[in-house]
Amino acid sequence: MPASPPLLPVTGQPAAERGDAARNRTLLLDAARQLIAERGADSVTTDDIAAAAGVGKGTLFRRFGSRAGLMVVLLDEDEKAQQAAFLFGPPPLGPGAPALDRLVAYGRNRLRFVHLHHELLSHANRDPRVRFNAPARVHHRHVYVLLRDADTTGDLDAQATALLALLDADYIHHQLTDAGRTLDDLGDAWESVARKLCGQ
Amino acid sequence: MPASPPLLPVTGQPAAERGDAARNRTLLLDAARQLIAERGADSVTTDDIAAAAGVGKGTLFRRFGSRAGLMVVLLDEDEKAQQAAFLFGPPPLGPGAPALDRLVAYGRNRLRFVHLHHELLSHANRDPRVRFNAPARVHHRHVYVLLRDADTTGDLDAQATALLALLDADYIHHQLTDAGRTLDDLGDAWESVARKLCGQ
Repeated sequence: MPASPPLLPVTGQPAAERGDAARNRTLLLDAARQLIAERGADSVTTDDIAAAAGVGKGTLFRRFGSRAGLMVVLLDEDEKAQQAAFLFGPPPLGPGAPALDRLVAYGRNRLRFVHLHHELLSHANRDPRVRFNAPARVHHRHVYVLLRDADTTGDLDAQATALLALLDADYIHHQLTDAGRTLDDLGDAWESVARKLCGQ
Repeated sequence: MPASPPLLPVTGQPAAERGDAARNRTLLLDAARQLIAERGADSVTTDDIAAAAGVGKGTLFRRFGSRAGLMVVLLDEDEKAQQAAFLFGPPPLGPGAPALDRLVAYGRNRLRFVHLHHELLSHANRDPRVRFNAPARVHHRHVYVLLRDADTTGDLDAQATALLALLDADYIHHQLTDAGRTLDDLGDAWESVARKLCGQ
């Protein structure tokens, strides 16, 4: 995962305030991330996040505008970190492992990510322009390249689309909530279809 | 395709009026179906439909309440007709052909259906409860049974979900509109993935 970009200097703002703002931003995002992992996004309020971060609620709203604003930043940061992990990180998720192993690791990793960020990803899915553009295209491309590198036969574009349906936010939520499946079950299903498409 | 259910008698309504109402309903639905097939749903107005049916626009609104109301009835009728065709109709779509041939025919048939009804299906997709319940479950079950009958190995539930992603209304629209694909291209892609999953 690459380091965060350096903060741009803000004219007329004292260095101490910039430092506080950056620290509060990190405290709030880390608190939100941990609370969501513990209870699910639907159960986490701005009061909870501010309290867990040890800052006032006013600070949260000054930094992020709203709960939704904070969630968008959180998803964006985590999405970038995950992309860095599967594009540049250690194997089996990153380069260095056989393509099929990477594909299996990607699916299991992405399942947890999508589950954690279900609320925002589900909302983004409502807009077809978002669904078929960045960052969705990054994931389609990644799966396509791994299928190709695994010497998969047939229409790789269609197979990547088909596979990625198993990582859809609403599908995963439905399987976990209404169909009694676990993330491990869904990871096994991903692996089963991935191995089959790769001819193993 | 089964016959339409008989109209229920409406107390106090003369038989002639009931007959007119039923005839106008059929005229309006047939006109809408033909116009949508010719130009796409987005370009068809209630004025167009009433004119093509040869009835007044007031009649359309009395029968269906709104353009959206007519579209819902049209989708529901066509969905029932299509389900009857793949469950009970002649092969290769209906019973009597090998399971893989039926699966290929189903995909190509459904692609045209989804394209024709893109507007309403896309709207229905926005609601995850609709996406994973009837009539979507009928299609998942149909694909599942055909995969099973074709002696497909592995997780059939996940494979049916993955395959059906290729028939998603927004995906098809995106492929036709932004990616320069044709319905035949998408039918070939469906066939390629279906044959692969069935081990052929």
